[in-house]
Amino acid sequence: MGLADKVLQGDVRAAARLMRDIEDGTPVAVEALSNLYPHTGRAHVVGITGAPGVGKSTLVDTIISILRQRNMTVGVVAIDPSSPFTGGAILGDRVRMQKHGTDQGVFIRSLATRGCSGGLSKATISTVHVMDAMSKDIVLVETVGVGQAEIDITKVADTSVLVLTPGMGDAIQVMKAGILEAVDIFVINKADQDGAQGVKGELQAMLDMKNYLPGDWKPAIVLTEAINNQGAEELVEEILRHRQFLISSGGLEKRRRERARLELIEAIETTITNCVANEMVKDYVEKLVEDLVRRKTSPNSAALEIINRTIKQLTAHDG
Amino acid sequence: MGLADKVLQGDVRAAARLMRDIEDGTPVAVEALSNLYPHTGRAHVVGITGAPGVGKSTLVDTIISILRQRNMTVGVVAIDPSSPFTGGAILGDRVRMQKHGTDQGVFIRSLATRGCSGGLSKATISTVHVMDAMSKDIVLVETVGVGQAEIDITKVADTSVLVLTPGMGDAIQVMKAGILEAVDIFVINKADQDGAQGVKGELQAMLDMKNYLPGDWKPAIVLTEAINNQGAEELVEEILRHRQFLISSGGLEKRRRERARLELIEAIETTITNCVANEMVKDYVEKLVEDLVRRKTSPNSAALEIINRTIKQLTAHDG
Repeated sequence: MGLADKVLQGDVRAAARLMRDIEDGTPVAVEALSNLYPHTGRAHVVGITGAPGVGKSTLVDTIISILRQRNMTVGVVAIDPSSPFTGGAILGDRVRMQKHGTDQGVFIRSLATRGCSGGLSKATISTVHVMDAMSKDIVLVETVGVGQAEIDITKVADTSVLVLTPGMGDAIQVMKAGILEAVDIFVINKADQDGAQGVKGELQAMLDMKNYLPGDWKPAIVLTEAINNQGAEELVEEILRHRQFLISSGGLEKRRRERARLELIEAIETTITNCVANEMVKDYVEKLVEDLVRRKTSPNSAALEIINRTIKQLTAHDG
Repeated sequence: MGLADKVLQGDVRAAARLMRDIEDGTPVAVEALSNLYPHTGRAHVVGITGAPGVGKSTLVDTIISILRQRNMTVGVVAIDPSSPFTGGAILGDRVRMQKHGTDQGVFIRSLATRGCSGGLSKATISTVHVMDAMSKDIVLVETVGVGQAEIDITKVADTSVLVLTPGMGDAIQVMKAGILEAVDIFVINKADQDGAQGVKGELQAMLDMKNYLPGDWKPAIVLTEAINNQGAEELVEEILRHRQFLISSGGLEKRRRERARLELIEAIETTITNCVANEMVKDYVEKLVEDLVRRKTSPNSAALEIINRTIKQLTAHDG
């Protein structure tokens, strides 16, 4: 039985192994993901973003418990910006697993971020696909970040939640233009601290300046005290209300079409890059690099030659 | 006569038009660049990097004058990190053109940077190729940046110059690991200010910690006062000495092979991306996106189909 079939049958170890393979970028992972893809698209993906220290993890833990009480299964992808060498990602995993580790309805995976742009890695999207194929009802994607992260998360999330704290009034003032549009639900966590109502007022004022058309989703603002279990029920209600809104308005379909297009373009780039690195094409690439150094060809002509050779090889493999 | 031929015949207006086309990414630019490529590889490309305010522009102006006195022709690509909308790039151009604008042996072009990663844009490399094809002996690429820029510049420059000031002792302490390896010549500008010798000492100590093999280039440290015309002659001497070193050691060939490989991979990616955006493939892409949304195919299978279709089209065009 293949890895994908095992995952579809609920084999947790197989899922964990596939997720490791995804992070390592092995060919096995590519094949398994292709096989799992037809079984995805059912989970509702919720992005939870915020600066370090706003209390995202505690909030996520509380959300897990509430969703479980409602008999929904939950996947969590926690993106840890620490280096893979510090062990931060693994430590985070362990702490959480103590709480939900024995619950078969919860699957938690931490990923260390890579790459320069701070954007979501391909591994994140693939890991979400695996949890989706495992029939998790809700997949929570937790990312640390300020600024770009709130916008990037929309590449994978159906519902985007931004977590703020009362001390962040200034941050709202200088909020990047695209963020108000990207966030579906604002959370002001640690709402027992001074200034929570002030931050809410400022946020509300900014949202009120926008012209919403009838039928538009108007972002909700929820006050929470994750550590005291306050407000999290309301947050879950808003998440589920937004899910319902997306389904009935056709917005879900639109978001997913946009994401399918992005994934397709990434898959094309990956296919080509892998082929260029492939042993069978390597000598040919080196020959063309020599020709370039000698100015016997141009990068564009050489690119066409390689694409040509690559496709012949790919088609031969397929047939 | 084609745009490329005009550039090769020294038509300055044609060169300026091509550079605009390059920034706009027009198909005309792609074709002209392919035609120019066989005529490139003769210019010596010098990257000049440094934080804002270290005096790079004044230094570059002085270098231009010294090279011109030695009867060498000069191209300058100034990369301005300001938004294309602030007009920063254009303003910088104008100020410089007042000094060298009537000199036929100097060609200056400012580019506004785009993209998130702070890396060198493809437009930078292409603009350098045009100046190279215009038979400029030396092409200076001036970039603002701290940290990554010094490393990125090696993707286009034969000789990398990093400009520091006496106030930057701390910056040297926390210098990124790859920078010492990437820089060929260190300049301490504003050397009349306190602390210049201190910075030089620190830098020398860091360089001395490295194990140089016989035949390795040991980075030079030059003290300049660009505004008083001090030290710039020595800097030009070091640049020309490094050029000679690269030629005789075979290092130039090695650097250029590495760059040819990078350009080839970029050209492959661009070719594919353009094809996906192409009108003739567009409907097909949309159909596959629909199939993805309906989970009838996977991103990888769809990618193969598009690459297949694309290559057929590219080959049809060629034949």
